[in-house]
Amino acid sequence: MAIVSISRRATFNASHRLHSHQLSDAENKILFGKCNRVNGHGHNYVLEVTLRGILDEKSGILFDLTKLKSIIDLAVIQKVDHLHLNMDVKPFDTINPTAENMAIVFWDWLAKEIPAGLLYEVKLHETENNVAIYRGE
Amino acid sequence: MAIVSISRRATFNASHRLHSHQLSDAENKILFGKCNRVNGHGHNYVLEVTLRGILDEKSGILFDLTKLKSIIDLAVIQKVDHLHLNMDVKPFDTINPTAENMAIVFWDWLAKEIPAGLLYEVKLHETENNVAIYRGE
Amino acid sequence: MAIVSISRRATFNASHRLHSHQLSDAENKILFGKCNRVNGHGHNYVLEVTLRGILDEKSGILFDLTKLKSIIDLAVIQKVDHLHLNMDVKPFDTINPTAENMAIVFWDWLAKEIPAGLLYEVKLHETENNVAIYRGE
Amino acid sequence: MAIVSISRRATFNASHRLHSHQLSDAENKILFGKCNRVNGHGHNYVLEVTLRGILDEKSGILFDLTKLKSIIDLAVIQKVDHLHLNMDVKPFDTINPTAENMAIVFWDWLAKEIPAGLLYEVKLHETENNVAIYRGE
Amino acid sequence: MAIVSISRRATFNASHRLHSHQLSDAENKILFGKCNRVNGHGHNYVLEVTLRGILDEKSGILFDLTKLKSIIDLAVIQKVDHLHLNMDVKPFDTINPTAENMAIVFWDWLAKEIPAGLLYEVKLHETENNVAIYRGE
Amino acid sequence: MAIVSISRRATFNASHRLHSHQLSDAENKILFGKCNRVNGHGHNYVLEVTLRGILDEKSGILFDLTKLKSIIDLAVIQKVDHLHLNMDVKPFDTINPTAENMAIVFWDWLAKEIPAGLLYEVKLHETENNVAIYRGE
Repeated sequence: MAIVSISRRATFNASHRLHSHQLSDAENKILFGKCNRVNGHGHNYVLEVTLRGILDEKSGILFDLTKLKSIIDLAVIQKVDHLHLNMDVKPFDTINPTAENMAIVFWDWLAKEIPAGLLYEVKLHETENNVAIYRGE
Repeated sequence: MAIVSISRRATFNASHRLHSHQLSDAENKILFGKCNRVNGHGHNYVLEVTLRGILDEKSGILFDLTKLKSIIDLAVIQKVDHLHLNMDVKPFDTINPTAENMAIVFWDWLAKEIPAGLLYEVKLHETENNVAIYRGE
Repeated sequence: MAIVSISRRATFNASHRLHSHQLSDAENKILFGKCNRVNGHGHNYVLEVTLRGILDEKSGILFDLTKLKSIIDLAVIQKVDHLHLNMDVKPFDTINPTAENMAIVFWDWLAKEIPAGLLYEVKLHETENNVAIYRGE
Repeated sequence: MAIVSISRRATFNASHRLHSHQLSDAENKILFGKCNRVNGHGHNYVLEVTLRGILDEKSGILFDLTKLKSIIDLAVIQKVDHLHLNMDVKPFDTINPTAENMAIVFWDWLAKEIPAGLLYEVKLHETENNVAIYRGE
Repeated sequence: MAIVSISRRATFNASHRLHSHQLSDAENKILFGKCNRVNGHGHNYVLEVTLRGILDEKSGILFDLTKLKSIIDLAVIQKVDHLHLNMDVKPFDTINPTAENMAIVFWDWLAKEIPAGLLYEVKLHETENNVAIYRGE
Repeated sequence: MAIVSISRRATFNASHRLHSHQLSDAENKILFGKCNRVNGHGHNYVLEVTLRGILDEKSGILFDLTKLKSIIDLAVIQKVDHLHLNMDVKPFDTINPTAENMAIVFWDWLAKEIPAGLLYEVKLHETENNVAIYRGE
């Protein structure tokens, strides 16, 4: 009996504005700087979803990769790709679309579609320099 | 006497909407699909600027790299980074911010700051899959 | 009137065996070494297709990117992806599937689907270290 | 006393067919789709081997990197590079060469050559989108 | 209450010579080979710093990214960039600048500037094939 | 008869100091800044060598890739890898080891080993942001 992990990578292009409704305009401007500019900016986001669990010895896989690809596409990519997160995508109308919050929200979306206990990590690359990770803790 | 080229890479994050004012709304929707969605989306753009000319044998360089970095930053990056191209950046209020048009506009901006004849190519990566190139022709 | 280029990247996974029917078995073994082993090996090929021509000023593009993506998919990717080139894909049953020959064959497949004069370059990455380029010359 | 990790990356090119002898032909076709096609396909695999343990303060290293490179080459790369896994490489004649199984088999091969307790993780990239990880659990 | 991680990437270019003062010249030569050559060599180092802690729900971030960027720049990059580690940078005049030791030293430098408990991992890529990781253990 | 190109990538790690003997110390310091620091710094250089010519239809290749790999290794990599260019490698004791000059010198070294007319381009990546290209002109 072996415990293995698999990761699947997907990409999407979206725009966002870092702005928290729980902070004042001045606080937002100081904290987020040019990321707070009113009309937003955008990224080629790279999403890595990792599952971890017991290998199915009969098939030699942890989870059907075609199914995982389809879950990521339906549960996340279709909802955010080529959209403005704050203006077009709930709950980012009220929740600040930081990479951290996006990783948490994507975890919640994915956890509903993946068998319990398998989802291990959601990693979101905002740029080649910035990454956020959430493990459901 | 040797002819050499040097390329310098820079990145910026911006949002845009593909929409031509010379086409009808229906034509824009058919041609640009999800790239035409009203609130736009965004990219981590990668810009590669290439100069080509005669090597200065005394110094061993074609052009001062610190100066080139600064020109790219001032002439392009500062004008577009963390902004919405259609809404915040002229001439993209009237010119459709396709990768092709962006390469042409960036060429014009750069050509004003670089000694005549040196600028050879502007290459703009919109995603890891899409690239536009302009050589001033 | 501006001349621009656009490149589109696509990937596929295939296996092949380097073996020329115009060379003896001994010559093939000497020339291609481990690439000539009888059961073949494989690659994650990366294909870059470049078009070059006059920008359509009305739309701001050289060529419809969705159409280009679809042409590359139908004319090349669907024919070679997840297959053994020598055993499953004509003309590689008789033509040695070197990166050079693949670039030439892909050019021929693509040229039939792209308006005359637009196709400029087919670049095929076999590994991160090996690339072949064909420009229809 | 410090606990550190080091990772070493190596690449190989191989072909495989996803097909489990414990499943029927129909089940294999449904589960693995185009990865189950009879003549196989291939990948540029990227292998990352991570060791973890107590730093040797005298030398400033965890483990001799030249030795690690050589172990990875002899224990793994030489056995699989430029070969068809199912047809040429034991135990993949009977064990389905999924990325998960490959990571487990490579762990076993490496563990025999690396001092006990040092081997921490085997990570295998099948494509830029698919990764499997095994930690000996 | 959610536990999240963020990683920030930075790069620097430096030269070094692998040579431990606690080993004889002969031992150094055997252990480090061409990395021990007397005038040194160099790398484009890539540094990834990971913080881990409780998300600040008001702002939606773990830690101010601009501040983190600045800390990494001042605490590490400015001290090592475009320098010869053994000759120009303390403590590498006495401590062998292996990737492992560099990760440990950088951890110590960073830990002084980052709120207690937040720093989680320092990952240093020496080349695309060699990585060292330190987690303060 | 088809004209094709092939590119082969190789890497090496070296240190250098940008300093021209034809400029004063003050001029060097102004022009090269931190790249002029006395003990030098280093890079993971990436070299791409491109050949261009008529495809050999019998074998399906332009040039034997194993031979090209070996030529690049012997003519360039072995001479510069894990060395200090200015101190250890002629002619960089007298010629400033800028990326431009390195590309030209490498062209000369390679041209002696490659059949006349085949060598087309030497491209040298100093960092992920800086590239120099020489085509023998």
